[in-house]
Amino acid sequence: MKNVLDNLRHSTAHLLAAAVVKLWPDAKPTIGPVIENGFYYDFDMGKVKISEKDLGKIEEAMSQILPGWDKFAKKEVTATQAKKLFKENSYKIELIEELEKSGEGITLYKSGAFVDLCRGGHVTKASEIKYFKLLSLAGAYWRGSEKNKMLTRIYGTAFTSKAELDKYLDSIEEASENDHRKIGKDLGLFVFSDLVGKGLPLLTAKGSTIRRELERFIVDEEIKRGYQHVYTPPLAKTDLYKKSGHYPYYKDTMYPVMKVDDEELILRPMTCPHHFMLYSSEVHSYRELPIRIAEIAPQYRYEKSGELTGLIRIRMFNLADAHIFTAPEAAEGEIEGVLDLISYANSVMGLKKGEDYRYRLSLGDRGDAKKYYKDDKAWDKAEGILRKVLKAQDVPFYEAAGEAAFYGPKIDVQVRKLSGKEETAFTVQYDFVMPKRFDLKYIDKDGKEKEIVVIHRASIGCLERTIAFLIEKYHGSFPLWLSPVQVKVLPITEKALKYANSVYLKLKEAGIRTEVDSRNETLAAKIRDAQLAKVPYMLILGPKEEEASLVSVRNRLGKTSGAVGLPKFMADIKEEIAKKIIS
Amino acid sequence: MKNVLDNLRHSTAHLLAAAVVKLWPDAKPTIGPVIENGFYYDFDMGKVKISEKDLGKIEEAMSQILPGWDKFAKKEVTATQAKKLFKENSYKIELIEELEKSGEGITLYKSGAFVDLCRGGHVTKASEIKYFKLLSLAGAYWRGSEKNKMLTRIYGTAFTSKAELDKYLDSIEEASENDHRKIGKDLGLFVFSDLVGKGLPLLTAKGSTIRRELERFIVDEEIKRGYQHVYTPPLAKTDLYKKSGHYPYYKDTMYPVMKVDDEELILRPMTCPHHFMLYSSEVHSYRELPIRIAEIAPQYRYEKSGELTGLIRIRMFNLADAHIFTAPEAAEGEIEGVLDLISYANSVMGLKKGEDYRYRLSLGDRGDAKKYYKDDKAWDKAEGILRKVLKAQDVPFYEAAGEAAFYGPKIDVQVRKLSGKEETAFTVQYDFVMPKRFDLKYIDKDGKEKEIVVIHRASIGCLERTIAFLIEKYHGSFPLWLSPVQVKVLPITEKALKYANSVYLKLKEAGIRTEVDSRNETLAAKIRDAQLAKVPYMLILGPKEEEASLVSVRNRLGKTSGAVGLPKFMADIKEEIAKKIIS
Repeated sequence: MKNVLDNLRHSTAHLLAAAVVKLWPDAKPTIGPVIENGFYYDFDMGKVKISEKDLGKIEEAMSQILPGWDKFAKKEVTATQAKKLFKENSYKIELIEELEKSGEGITLYKSGAFVDLCRGGHVTKASEIKYFKLLSLAGAYWRGSEKNKMLTRIYGTAFTSKAELDKYLDSIEEASENDHRKIGKDLGLFVFSDLVGKGLPLLTAKGSTIRRELERFIVDEEIKRGYQHVYTPPLAKTDLYKKSGHYPYYKDTMYPVMKVDDEELILRPMTCPHHFMLYSSEVHSYRELPIRIAEIAPQYRYEKSGELTGLIRIRMFNLADAHIFTAPEAAEGEIEGVLDLISYANSVMGLKKGEDYRYRLSLGDRGDAKKYYKDDKAWDKAEGILRKVLKAQDVPFYEAAGEAAFYGPKIDVQVRKLSGKEETAFTVQYDFVMPKRFDLKYIDKDGKEKEIVVIHRASIGCLERTIAFLIEKYHGSFPLWLSPVQVKVLPITEKALKYANSVYLKLKEAGIRTEVDSRNETLAAKIRDAQLAKVPYMLILGPKEEEASLVSVRNRLGKTSGAVGLPKFMADIKEEIAKKIIS
Repeated sequence: MKNVLDNLRHSTAHLLAAAVVKLWPDAKPTIGPVIENGFYYDFDMGKVKISEKDLGKIEEAMSQILPGWDKFAKKEVTATQAKKLFKENSYKIELIEELEKSGEGITLYKSGAFVDLCRGGHVTKASEIKYFKLLSLAGAYWRGSEKNKMLTRIYGTAFTSKAELDKYLDSIEEASENDHRKIGKDLGLFVFSDLVGKGLPLLTAKGSTIRRELERFIVDEEIKRGYQHVYTPPLAKTDLYKKSGHYPYYKDTMYPVMKVDDEELILRPMTCPHHFMLYSSEVHSYRELPIRIAEIAPQYRYEKSGELTGLIRIRMFNLADAHIFTAPEAAEGEIEGVLDLISYANSVMGLKKGEDYRYRLSLGDRGDAKKYYKDDKAWDKAEGILRKVLKAQDVPFYEAAGEAAFYGPKIDVQVRKLSGKEETAFTVQYDFVMPKRFDLKYIDKDGKEKEIVVIHRASIGCLERTIAFLIEKYHGSFPLWLSPVQVKVLPITEKALKYANSVYLKLKEAGIRTEVDSRNETLAAKIRDAQLAKVPYMLILGPKEEEASLVSVRNRLGKTSGAVGLPKFMADIKEEIAKKIIS
């Protein structure tokens, strides 16, 4: 097994080098060995500076190159031939000279158009490379000597199955200082309780503040964009999910049926049929379309206990869900509108396209009638529309076969965690199946009943999961509008307590989330604790400030901006909050 | 059975007359017969004017008089004796003279200090009168002739059990034009679905707007008042409710246990133990107290299908819940604070103390150790504190034995529906049991661990139920801040449509909930429909308004205020919304 993994990882290192050279033709690959749990490759990047933000881009290039590779073809060459080939790469020349001296044979391995100097140890077919991930980036001296040039080292890993890769990524995440579970605990954002149950987080006041801010932001934004926000019950008769067809597909992750009186009830795994019930409670004319029904929707899925992960994978979550009921000819525009909303909401949360997230077009499989509703023409049409919308967006996306919903293809918004692991955060789905099942119609201009198209979408996804992404994205130092405590008032001594309390009250009255540190501690200790709590602003108050009716401002990075009047400080941060500025 | 009910109702009519005379000594009772489903009594109120708002007060007086009554003692008298007794009541004199003429005997019935001229037909003991309700008030001419004086008729009813009384009140409610179920349907506020299940309402966009406004109002108000708002999962392991002691008491109305893997989960009937888990996830010092943990908490109770009533009694609801963790000596102040919040929130919603709601002190029963936790001293103390707080409020309240929670006494806020039926809307409970069960402590000044007191409270109650109260209170004509649609723009003809849309966009941008009626209908039809939809303001737009850049304003009562500039209109209604004015 070790050899299998080593060969896989070493082969993936070749692929990495090929991708880097493709993206930056002046980059010079040096050595790319296998290490415990993965591999690395060192590059002389010349004048180019790359960072961990580029890892996603490199992975994408790797995925694009891979289909063009078949075997790793071996070729024995002389030193002269090898030196000629690598004449522009002084590192490879140095290696070749050493091999020449030692009398070892010199071998090249070619895959696709990429050739590397290499001792061997590869997979039989490049298509065995499937589950890989670039992890991090570091500086490393050539041959480990600080007398040599500093190279750029890219670490990665590969496994033979997705499950193993995910498990490994989870384990390094969990060990990381930046894991949302660790930060969440340190900052007191959420807790779990044995008595409540696994995968059922209790958000504390602080964690709840973040959720409430996100929730109000997206509800208000969606209403502005013509959505109707509703509340529907998070459970229903099993019949409803049998009718929708969810029951056979989701049964394994649904909670058990509850039999009471003459009813069989079950907690909902999805909101769709509830919104269908609202839609079909009235007759609709083409004039009313599109009807966009949205909800911050509690949903229940019984994930396996081994798969539960902090706030990322839980057993009861709240999805910023919606279903758009549209005439087929308007579907394309509606999907564009959804992508625009997602992209806007992401930018407000500080998630950057291409860096923090990318799009995936998840397709069905015409051959799998068990998993996907059989209607080749409808699949072709729907996939065509989604592809067209994505192309028009002028953003990178990739296609993934067999990842669609059973009722149609979808666009997934894949968020990249700092560990490199990707999670599906938000989705846009094109549904041509449910309208048939639920007989969802509208009266068209010609007075005839026509079938509607439903677009399922999650704008900022599952709130709990999005909070987890943001915790890791910001290392707990949230933008001001999301910060559970926005201002900490630090009286230097007890004498300043009264002034501190009057400042606190004014801030609180203005709706600014504020705390006073009234402990009998040194100022240094108070500042340290406020910084550990990642509070954006500290107001340091002593006799000097009190006398002049001023506040001395310090931010969580340690930057002080001297004494200012409280009204000026309040006006500044109120603007920062209202504009949701990411500092 | 008919006779039993007739006797009961006729006896209750006596009690009504006694109460009216007690409250208004100049009132003159005339006749009080039994009718189908109840009784009435006609009074000459002299110069006093009473309305349906007084019915609660009269019922209270009836309840106060009742314990002093025993039998209905019969006495045969001569006409002269009778006339002497009723010398100040010309109506009774007229009746006596008729009896005299007819040769019928004249009988008086006395109960307590109250004597009435009466043919008889009473309950054996006055204590059989238990379940009565005054229903309405009307004008009625003496002896049905318009030549006579107009009297005040008070209708009421009585039953031999609470269940029968409630059922009857439900039935008249349901038949009423003002029933929230009828208005809710007419205004499109909520729907039920056979596929979703009984007692599980789906709020439409309009109904959801009301809920969202109420929710944001109370969350913001509570945060201002020092509550922490949290989100906890609406289900937990059965163990949690066994530990809290809820399981044996609420088992019958809880949903069935869901067994999954090694866990037994159940939907929560109460939020308390979840908040206890949050409290006990950290050690707390006396400095932090009180800690007020609040939540808009989804809860599940499997009410019997016969008891389900619109939004009033449902199987899944959202409670504006909170638990205050306080040192015992601060409990009284905290309870005062809660009553202040309830009274403030009610006034914002337009509910008037004494008229729309009153307080009930619900006590335990020292003799019933099965239903109530056994600790006489603790009960005495807790009941004493609640009584003291209520007395200091200087508001009417009444005491009800055997209505407490199993863990302590409570103050119930009883809302009076238009049908006369009272429902417990909000509660404040004093709990000395749970802190023991969950070992809820704090570190006091002396460094020692002490037991906390928990105050359970619901500020604006169950949101769905409160919406039902408000629908009936306002007959669907909600105050502006709660109105699903605040402004309806009515272009007089198609020519004004462009101007109408520009006005619509400006209102929408300002966050005012607005719709345009772009149908090809007459202005009269548009006005009629907007009034039926109870939209507070209509803007009537024609060429005249467009030319002058004005809007003609009409409110839902038909009052027009002429053409004004849009900025002026917007400023006015923004103020009306922000101040939550009840027009």
